[in-house]
Amino acid sequence: MRWNLPPDSIPEAWFNVVPHLEQPLQPPLHPATREPVGPADLSPIFPMALIGQEVSTEPWIDIPGEVLDVLRLWRPTPLVRATRLEAALETPARIYYKDESVSPAGSHKPNTAVPQAYYNKQEGVRRLATETGAGQWGSALSFACSILGLECKVYMVRASFNQKPYRRTMIEVWGGEVEASPVDDPSDPGSLGSAISDAVRDAVSREDSHYALGSVLNHVLLHQTVIGLEAKEQLALAGEERPDIVIGSCGGGSNLGGIALPFVPDENVAFLAVEPSSCPTLTEGRFDYDFGDVAGMTPLLAMYTLGHDFKPPPIHAGGLRYHGDSPIISHLVKSGRMKAVAYPQDVVFEAAVKFARVQGTVPAPETSHAIRAVIDAAVAAKDAGEETVILFSYSGHGLLDLSAYADYLSGRL
Amino acid sequence: MRWNLPPDSIPEAWFNVVPHLEQPLQPPLHPATREPVGPADLSPIFPMALIGQEVSTEPWIDIPGEVLDVLRLWRPTPLVRATRLEAALETPARIYYKDESVSPAGSHKPNTAVPQAYYNKQEGVRRLATETGAGQWGSALSFACSILGLECKVYMVRASFNQKPYRRTMIEVWGGEVEASPVDDPSDPGSLGSAISDAVRDAVSREDSHYALGSVLNHVLLHQTVIGLEAKEQLALAGEERPDIVIGSCGGGSNLGGIALPFVPDENVAFLAVEPSSCPTLTEGRFDYDFGDVAGMTPLLAMYTLGHDFKPPPIHAGGLRYHGDSPIISHLVKSGRMKAVAYPQDVVFEAAVKFARVQGTVPAPETSHAIRAVIDAAVAAKDAGEETVILFSYSGHGLLDLSAYADYLSGRL
Repeated sequence: MRWNLPPDSIPEAWFNVVPHLEQPLQPPLHPATREPVGPADLSPIFPMALIGQEVSTEPWIDIPGEVLDVLRLWRPTPLVRATRLEAALETPARIYYKDESVSPAGSHKPNTAVPQAYYNKQEGVRRLATETGAGQWGSALSFACSILGLECKVYMVRASFNQKPYRRTMIEVWGGEVEASPVDDPSDPGSLGSAISDAVRDAVSREDSHYALGSVLNHVLLHQTVIGLEAKEQLALAGEERPDIVIGSCGGGSNLGGIALPFVPDENVAFLAVEPSSCPTLTEGRFDYDFGDVAGMTPLLAMYTLGHDFKPPPIHAGGLRYHGDSPIISHLVKSGRMKAVAYPQDVVFEAAVKFARVQGTVPAPETSHAIRAVIDAAVAAKDAGEETVILFSYSGHGLLDLSAYADYLSGRL
Repeated sequence: MRWNLPPDSIPEAWFNVVPHLEQPLQPPLHPATREPVGPADLSPIFPMALIGQEVSTEPWIDIPGEVLDVLRLWRPTPLVRATRLEAALETPARIYYKDESVSPAGSHKPNTAVPQAYYNKQEGVRRLATETGAGQWGSALSFACSILGLECKVYMVRASFNQKPYRRTMIEVWGGEVEASPVDDPSDPGSLGSAISDAVRDAVSREDSHYALGSVLNHVLLHQTVIGLEAKEQLALAGEERPDIVIGSCGGGSNLGGIALPFVPDENVAFLAVEPSSCPTLTEGRFDYDFGDVAGMTPLLAMYTLGHDFKPPPIHAGGLRYHGDSPIISHLVKSGRMKAVAYPQDVVFEAAVKFARVQGTVPAPETSHAIRAVIDAAVAAKDAGEETVILFSYSGHGLLDLSAYADYLSGRL
């Protein structure tokens, strides 16, 4: 069962969770002075509109009309009830998911790529530079720049650039330019942290260019709240008062934040962040100030971190391989408002194949982390005999990750 | 702009075009006797329900409830108005497309895979055998068998089996078994015609098994008419009385038939079939009785054909590489009710990239043939100053065809 909303019912404002937090967020610090950063520190890489959103305490922030027009290419996304999965698990739980895989780039990432490109264009920026791991974020930004008429330069982690050419091709189909990172050492396979350094260096060195980040920061999570806001409306259409638990996979935190934050004011809703055992930021990291990148060029953020020099193993869920986490998500976990769990890769793919065989669609490896936790929650509901209402974010499809499935099915994981 | 329909508004009956044809269709002939085939000739490979649909002259055929339940996983599909493409072309034409890429397998193929699996299961068949070229049909049937609890065996053209592993993996994710064809010669790269021979041979040799075909036959086109029926309702919601022209790419004819046939009774609607110049069945073939496969095991069909021993070059639109065509489509073209046009690969990819950069989504190479014709029709409408209403089928996405885009973008086509 699916609940669609008409195109004119996209939320017209983003939900800002900051005024709803019990404690204020700790401010980002300047990497050199360790003093709180001000707008002037960030203006070489971000437009003022986004800097304003980063520190805003307004409860709602209007979405510009031109952004809504582009989001309407695929939004509102469907809310789906996974009745066939419920039946296969014989659970009394009701499982709903928000299908963010229907965007042109195949994930939730365009929800923030579009407003970021828009605000930069409004302030006269002609070109955006960014980094990408497996290519989800780079392809989303290239799509947004194509629609809005900006140039786009993507620094892609070299290992992915060489071994996973398909998202690189997507970036190029939309007109973006891709370069392997790190740019100064062709023998280095690279990492997300070093690609961020390359992209920031590019943006500060050119008058016409800014930098764009696809997760972690407050304004990114803000843009993703359209997911949870739509889900709220659709759950009401489905006759549900509220979800008992909201589940999302968590790398930098933008997917989880998008589905979860609009429900934070409701004390009866529980939250679960799901991460890979091989990069257990929330479950095994320390809460501290740390850099967002390897080279230490970014502001210091108060977050759970494994250390900015942590090198996660090359698991298939490339979007979850980040040493740190969103300050907002970290804050919610630290305060106990949100729980976190970590899973190893094999049980994640087991859940993904089960899901595909009963519900039909093939989820991204990142998304499959959430599905693993959803199945476990639904089985627990069965054991307890409770009609738990579960909501999760189907953050992306796995059509460009089929080699990972081939590895799993042939026992090579 | 998009028009969604609620899940309970899927058409509850398929539209049969046969009673609306001016002349009766010529019957299929037995390959040995050259006499019209009867139900007994077909019963070793097809269930009686599908044999009945193949020769039915009833105007409407009810869709079983269990089939509707599965179709509802992704249907009704959206009707989209390509306003950004219209603006880029500065055309007064209004361009609408039916987005069939949203199915779990990524194309229109599951529309018939599901009822075929259903009717076979109803008649006690436990296992289906089929062929696939690049994998669109094989993955659709594997999906349908997974949902309905049948085994699925797919004979995949060896060249694709070796070089394009991703759709093979999709088939396996859904539990299907894949074997390279021809099975008796590992050095032969294979063809669709010889894979059909392998699959039919499998089905007739096993008591528990039947054969399933993904295009060409009347019952396949019948199942696809949900596309055009939904489009009709959605065009009315969009305020359009009718399309002036319906455009679809045409390999075996199931995609084109699906969007076009429900409009055949309306004399004010024109139709255009789009095929590749390298496999110009409708534009350069002869109308004659011919076999559906290389080995001459299938009934002889009255159709446009390039000869059952024709070997099309390995273009990227694998779904359009078939020597013959649906008897219904062939009949419409022969009578002048439908026109056909052929395009070479380079201008097709040029259109596909243009579409992706303004509308956002990356179309399949097959679909891109239709897009080329749509752009040409929209430009002609501009030259004539006419508000032509164009409807086309966006039959599939190109996410598993990105290597073809890489070839195009780097000038290797």
